Amino acid sequence: MSDSKRVKRPQLHLTAFMRPVSLHTGAWRYPGAYPDANFNFNHIKSFIQKLEAAKFDAFFMADHLAVLNMPVEALKRSHTVTSFEPFTLLSALSVVTEKIGLAATASTTYDEPYHIARRFASLDHLSNGRAAWNIVTTGNPESAKNFGLEDHVEHSSRYKRAREFYDVVTGLWDSFADDAFIWDQESGVYFDPEKMHVLNHKGDDLKVKGPLNIARPVQGWPVIVQAGQSDPGRQLAAETAEAVFCSPRDLEAAKALYADIKGRAIAVGRDPNHLKILPAAFIVVGDSFEDAQAKRLKLDSLVHYDSAIASLSIALGTDASKYDPDGPLPTDIPETNASKTSQASVIRLAAKEKLTVRQLAQRLGGYSGLAFVGTPESIADEMGTWLAEEGADGFTIALPFLPQGLDDVADRLVPELQRRGLFRKEYEGTTLREHLGLPRPKNRFFE
Amino acid sequence: MSDSKRVKRPQLHLTAFMRPVSLHTGAWRYPGAYPDANFNFNHIKSFIQKLEAAKFDAFFMADHLAVLNMPVEALKRSHTVTSFEPFTLLSALSVVTEKIGLAATASTTYDEPYHIARRFASLDHLSNGRAAWNIVTTGNPESAKNFGLEDHVEHSSRYKRAREFYDVVTGLWDSFADDAFIWDQESGVYFDPEKMHVLNHKGDDLKVKGPLNIARPVQGWPVIVQAGQSDPGRQLAAETAEAVFCSPRDLEAAKALYADIKGRAIAVGRDPNHLKILPAAFIVVGDSFEDAQAKRLKLDSLVHYDSAIASLSIALGTDASKYDPDGPLPTDIPETNASKTSQASVIRLAAKEKLTVRQLAQRLGGYSGLAFVGTPESIADEMGTWLAEEGADGFTIALPFLPQGLDDVADRLVPELQRRGLFRKEYEGTTLREHLGLPRPKNRFFE
Ligand SMILES: Cc1cc2nc3c(=O)[nH]c(=O)nc-3n(C[C@H](O)[C@H](O)[C@H](O)COP(=O)(O)O)c2cc1C
Ligand SMILES: Cc1cc2nc3c(=O)[nH]c(=O)nc-3n(C[C@H](O)[C@H](O)[C@H](O)COP(=O)(O)O)c2cc1C
Repeated sequence: MSDSKRVKRPQLHLTAFMRPVSLHTGAWRYPGAYPDANFNFNHIKSFIQKLEAAKFDAFFMADHLAVLNMPVEALKRSHTVTSFEPFTLLSALSVVTEKIGLAATASTTYDEPYHIARRFASLDHLSNGRAAWNIVTTGNPESAKNFGLEDHVEHSSRYKRAREFYDVVTGLWDSFADDAFIWDQESGVYFDPEKMHVLNHKGDDLKVKGPLNIARPVQGWPVIVQAGQSDPGRQLAAETAEAVFCSPRDLEAAKALYADIKGRAIAVGRDPNHLKILPAAFIVVGDSFEDAQAKRLKLDSLVHYDSAIASLSIALGTDASKYDPDGPLPTDIPETNASKTSQASVIRLAAKEKLTVRQLAQRLGGYSGLAFVGTPESIADEMGTWLAEEGADGFTIALPFLPQGLDDVADRLVPELQRRGLFRKEYEGTTLREHLGLPRPKNRFFE
Repeated sequence: MSDSKRVKRPQLHLTAFMRPVSLHTGAWRYPGAYPDANFNFNHIKSFIQKLEAAKFDAFFMADHLAVLNMPVEALKRSHTVTSFEPFTLLSALSVVTEKIGLAATASTTYDEPYHIARRFASLDHLSNGRAAWNIVTTGNPESAKNFGLEDHVEHSSRYKRAREFYDVVTGLWDSFADDAFIWDQESGVYFDPEKMHVLNHKGDDLKVKGPLNIARPVQGWPVIVQAGQSDPGRQLAAETAEAVFCSPRDLEAAKALYADIKGRAIAVGRDPNHLKILPAAFIVVGDSFEDAQAKRLKLDSLVHYDSAIASLSIALGTDASKYDPDGPLPTDIPETNASKTSQASVIRLAAKEKLTVRQLAQRLGGYSGLAFVGTPESIADEMGTWLAEEGADGFTIALPFLPQGLDDVADRLVPELQRRGLFRKEYEGTTLREHLGLPRPKNRFFE
């Protein structure tokens, strides 16, 4: 195959969902797993170095501005309760890595654009161009109570502010031309003031003067990510994002989402290739499908039954604790008007995988989003299909348990993807923009 | 000398003022200096490693939430314009050091207690107990304009909020007992919910529910520093601080300040030994006094005359550009009603050091605070006197230029202090609290 052809074949982009290090509630209890994996710098350092050796595009730290809102019986079993704050952790990780991108969530609802612009700029400089900002309006309503409010800011107000916030942050990043700093010891001129722009933003929600007190980021702007799923969330993504984290249930839903977001991007005049759709996918690798499925069932079994049954009851819209845990799901589940879709999909899942009530409950209480469970070959097949059918430009990989689940991905799945030409064997550039194939934004105030 | 006696002799505590890396305007132009010293991670890494080898207590990053407010002719010559944000830089530095403390300024006026508590807790965990928070109400009024306001929040309101902010942040740090996290894989209990406290703070300025989403810091609380000089600033220090950054002009002023702050601490029932007074001192080391003074004059000469003369005019309360730059300061300076003290002290300075108008202007435009200029022996003499006479428990050392001015301190002054028993030869503990001889705070909600 000629070089030019190889360059053109689309490849997957892979980011790792790393806060918490596993989204699965039982992860820290899995045999051989580090119980403190989510809160031990040395472990996390080894994880990111493994991801970098596997040539991942980025390490992603989701973020929440509160302890997650769950009953204390579930909370006390959750490894999410203590986590590093994203900027402090990613900056520390920037020193022990060289190429892998460093993505963090930051809230536009409960923070200030001057702070956010500055921290991402600083992280981008420290990492030589590897930062990404996952713009969220904050999912967890409990956060409001930690920031002086009784109730979560209303959805449309959150998104309105988010859009303006983005304008301000990117405007602040453009405070200095790329070549503003001269450091001329002879003349004593440190920077050219003609190349400094005072933003003077005055909008509906924000008033920010500027300039930012840090040079323009190495990437111009850190990569912009969006993770909102609602209509305004998708629209914000289409207008601003260069990568989208999403959680479609299956390929059909993913294709619809993919077409919708790329279509919206085209409608606002953007190149759809500059917006990568990266669904979250939970990966369990085994020697055979049965082996992988057994690992998953083992992992699910580590979810405490009390919290598991609560999740199942919510999904079914009826108290599931009355059913025999070790029998099949009864066929006479009462109709619900809570969420018919969720009830139906749970009933389908139980039938498809022949799960007992206990197993079903533990699936829901563990992790019930999109999952690829199988051999390196079968998972590579699925990923290849998603890429080819425009369901995804890559994945945000959620790991089942650490370190083994990560090793399985890095040592077994990634080589299989590489063999098929679906994933890079080496980083070609040094910045996250280069890994993702994104252009470096022009400074809006200077050419 | 017996061991117990050696332990009791008071020793200096030394922190290094590192944002900007030098407070002197001409620093980056000094022959042999790195022009980008303030914004180059590899340089800063070598500085902190040098400071750690010299057994400094801490590396201190001041912070400002705006480009400093100065005329553009001065601004374009200032290396303060681009700096790393403190948490991102200190977290990165935590990975390349083991013992030295990591202190950062954070504003109580333009930030939120949940964010501040979380970031310092995260830095404290990442660094194994080396974080310190310099509580400021924000000096630079320009900051307001970057946070939605036209004018700086009024002084007494700033200090009122600061006091409440401190209560909230320390309360959030106490969200979990030190032994709350169990990570028991067998039972599946990650932490003991009896050992989690929900703060539920509702005060005049702040409403914060909690708990914090990170375990109690390694040090219990990061070390509390205060740098306010006004009456409410001193009172806040007396009530809350464990170290005070200050800027007395001379030993007399320092003794008065020292007695005042320690007296206020005693009045509120605190042990005055648990509050260290650390005046900022600019250090220029030479082979002789003349050599050191020549370095200083050379450094001052690198301040641009236009900005220098503006500083002199302000200090004198009259336009100084009409004077002969190379002559002595005229004796007929008109009386001023701006600041008589500043005028008088400038006139005294010119006479004492026999400075020309240009040299005087450049001193003021460079760095005109407390300075120890001389040989390692003479500076050690001065520092010893300050310690003995209760003018200081140590110093916040401001460096003249980098790397040489830092090497002079680390390689020449520190060994002289060590020979005299005025400074440690080895770190005795691992946390910043241990370096400073401070107790670990009890958790207010759990014993
Ligand atoms: C992969 C992925 C990562 C996400 N990360 C975060 C996060 O870190 N913080 C957060 O508050 N929400 C996060 N979300 C949730 C979204 O920001 C958003 O709250 C949710 O999708 C609801 O969408 P909407 O607010 O547009 O209605 C994430 C969602 C996905 C799919
Ligand atoms: C050594 C030292 C360090 C300081 N660091 C900061 C800083 O990082 N940020 C800031 O806004 N002010 C800083 N200040 C200034 C004080 O916070 C304060 O604004 C100033 O001393 C005026 O005091 P007042 O606000 O109590 O009137 C510092 C002062 C000293 C002496």
